[in-house]
Amino acid sequence: MPTVYVLTTGGTIEKVYSENSGSVSNTENKIDRYLRLLRLPDAEVNVVPLMNKDSLEMRDQDRVLILGMVRAILKENAPIVITHGTDTMFETGLYLQRALPELKTPIGRTGAIHPLGFEGSDGLQNLTESLLACRLVQPGIYIARHGTLYPAGRVRKDKTIGKFVWND
Amino acid sequence: MPTVYVLTTGGTIEKVYSENSGSVSNTENKIDRYLRLLRLPDAEVNVVPLMNKDSLEMRDQDRVLILGMVRAILKENAPIVITHGTDTMFETGLYLQRALPELKTPIGRTGAIHPLGFEGSDGLQNLTESLLACRLVQPGIYIARHGTLYPAGRVRKDKTIGKFVWND
Amino acid sequence: MPTVYVLTTGGTIEKVYSENSGSVSNTENKIDRYLRLLRLPDAEVNVVPLMNKDSLEMRDQDRVLILGMVRAILKENAPIVITHGTDTMFETGLYLQRALPELKTPIGRTGAIHPLGFEGSDGLQNLTESLLACRLVQPGIYIARHGTLYPAGRVRKDKTIGKFVWND
Amino acid sequence: MPTVYVLTTGGTIEKVYSENSGSVSNTENKIDRYLRLLRLPDAEVNVVPLMNKDSLEMRDQDRVLILGMVRAILKENAPIVITHGTDTMFETGLYLQRALPELKTPIGRTGAIHPLGFEGSDGLQNLTESLLACRLVQPGIYIARHGTLYPAGRVRKDKTIGKFVWND
Repeated sequence: MPTVYVLTTGGTIEKVYSENSGSVSNTENKIDRYLRLLRLPDAEVNVVPLMNKDSLEMRDQDRVLILGMVRAILKENAPIVITHGTDTMFETGLYLQRALPELKTPIGRTGAIHPLGFEGSDGLQNLTESLLACRLVQPGIYIARHGTLYPAGRVRKDKTIGKFVWND
Repeated sequence: MPTVYVLTTGGTIEKVYSENSGSVSNTENKIDRYLRLLRLPDAEVNVVPLMNKDSLEMRDQDRVLILGMVRAILKENAPIVITHGTDTMFETGLYLQRALPELKTPIGRTGAIHPLGFEGSDGLQNLTESLLACRLVQPGIYIARHGTLYPAGRVRKDKTIGKFVWND
Repeated sequence: MPTVYVLTTGGTIEKVYSENSGSVSNTENKIDRYLRLLRLPDAEVNVVPLMNKDSLEMRDQDRVLILGMVRAILKENAPIVITHGTDTMFETGLYLQRALPELKTPIGRTGAIHPLGFEGSDGLQNLTESLLACRLVQPGIYIARHGTLYPAGRVRKDKTIGKFVWND
Repeated sequence: MPTVYVLTTGGTIEKVYSENSGSVSNTENKIDRYLRLLRLPDAEVNVVPLMNKDSLEMRDQDRVLILGMVRAILKENAPIVITHGTDTMFETGLYLQRALPELKTPIGRTGAIHPLGFEGSDGLQNLTESLLACRLVQPGIYIARHGTLYPAGRVRKDKTIGKFVWND
C-alpha cells in the first residue's frame, strides 16, 4: 500500500480554543484526530508532528527543520503533505523549491483560514484536497485548497484582502 | 402556547472566530441560529438581542439596560433566560435579585465556557437546560448549566480554577 | 457526588446506520458515547445498557426486565433516566407506575424521533433535558423531551400525527 | 471563472432519514446544501438535480436521461461530477464511456456508503475529491472517492465484501 506523509507545522488549521484564556492558539496537535474522519483505505498515512507555530512566527531555523524532515521523508519516495499557516506558506514554498530542485514526488501544502473543528472550518476540505492532489500530480511543490491546486511560486497571499492572488 | 424570552447579552457562548483577525470576539449574534437546532414545540421562544459583550467589560449602565428589559418582559408574566458571560454572571444576578424582590416568574441565566459551534462547546447543553429549568422551577433567579441549577447568590466563579463554587 | 443512572433500552434515539444493509436499526449502543459530549461535573452518571430494541418489538418480558433493573437501582436511592422508543414509552410508563406506587426518586424517560448523530437529531437535547429534570422534580415517573416534562399517564402518542397528545 | 456541473442522481450519498417511517430513502435533494459547506471561490458550481434514486432501481431509461443531460452539459465544455449510488455506478460508467468516445472534459463520478449528514459519512470527502479531480485530470470518465481516483472500466463493486476491486 502506498504511503503518504503528513508533516504538521501549525497554522490556523491546527489552532485550538482555550477555555482558560478565552483565545485561540497553536497548543495542541489536532491534524491526527481529523485525519481519522477521512476514509483513505488505499494509503498508509503517517503523521509527523514537527512543530506547532503560527506561521507569522516561523523563523529561518524552522524552515531548516522542515527542509531536514522533508529530505528524510523523500528517501522513502513518498508524497508529502505539509500543513502550514497561510501567512508565510509562500515563503516556505519558495525556500523548499530552491533547496529541492530535483524532486521526484509531489509535495502538497495546505492550511486553513478557519480552524479544524470550528463551525465553518475549511480545514478538512483542504486536507482532503491536498491528500488527493499529492497522489495525482507530477513531482513538484504545490498548494491545494479551496478546490484549486497552485504551483509554488505562482501565487502569494495579499494580506490586505486576505486572499491568494496569482503572481502574474 | 406559553412564551419564553431569551435575552442575549454576549459572553463566551456567543463568541465567533474572525478569519480576518484570527481571534474570537463578541461581534455577531448567534444564539438565534442555535436555538433553531432545538425542538421546542410547546413554547414560543422570543429572542431579544440586547447587547453582545464580553462580561468582563460589562459596566453598571449595561446592568441598568438588562434590568430595564427584564422589567419590560416581566409585564408579560413569561419566564426569561438571560445568556451572559460567566465571569460576571454572579454580579449581574445579585443586581437583578436586589432590584426584583417580588418575582412572579423564574429568570434563568446561562452562558458557556466554550463558544457555540466550536467542537466541544457546552453552549447548546446550557441553553437546553436553562430553557427547561425556567419552565419547571419556582419564581426566582437561577443559573442553569452543566446539569446543575444554582440559585442566585449561592455560587460564585473562582477565577483561579475557572469553576463555579458554592458560597458556603 | 450524587449518582444518576441511565438505563438504555433502545428505540430511535439509539438507531445506527448500517453501511452493509443501507438501513437503520438497533444494533449498537451509542448513548454512552453521546453522554460524553455533555458536561455533568456534579453527577456520576452510570450507564446501564439493558437491551437495544425498537419499542414496537417490546414484549411483556422486556418490561419485566426493565422493572427488575429499576427496582435494583432504586435501592441506591438515585434518580434514573430510561431511554426508550417513543412508540410504546407510554405503555412502559404505566406499567412502571402501577408496579412502583411508592417512588422516592424521580424516574425520567426519554427517547428521540431522530437518531443520535444524524443531522437534525433531537436525541442529545432530550438526554440533556431528562438528566436535568430528574434532579429537579419530585419523585414520580416522567417523560422529558422537546422542552417539556410530561407526568406518566397524562400523555400518549397519536400515531396518526406522530406527536404526543395530552390524555384529557 | 470556470464552471463545474454537479449532476445528482440519488444513491446513498443523498439518502435522508424520515421521522415518520423511521427509515432512510431517496426523497429529498441534499447535495446542494452540503456543497455550500465547501469553499470553491474559483469555480462556479451548477447543481443539476436530475433524479433521486437508489442505484439498484436505476433502469435503462434512467441512464438514457443521464446521458442526455451529460451531452447537453458537454456543449459548455465544462467538467461534470455525477453523484450516483455505488451499487451500479460501474454500469453507468461503462454506458457513458461507450456513448462518449471522444470526451474533451473529465467526467467524475462519486457517491457514498454513508449518507451526507450522518455521523461518519464519507459523502463530503467524496464530493470534495471529485470536484478537485475533475479540474486536475485528463478528459475521461473517473470515479473519485476515499482518496483514490479510478478510471471507468478498471474497477467494479464486489457486493459480497462491499468494496471496490480492480478488474485486473
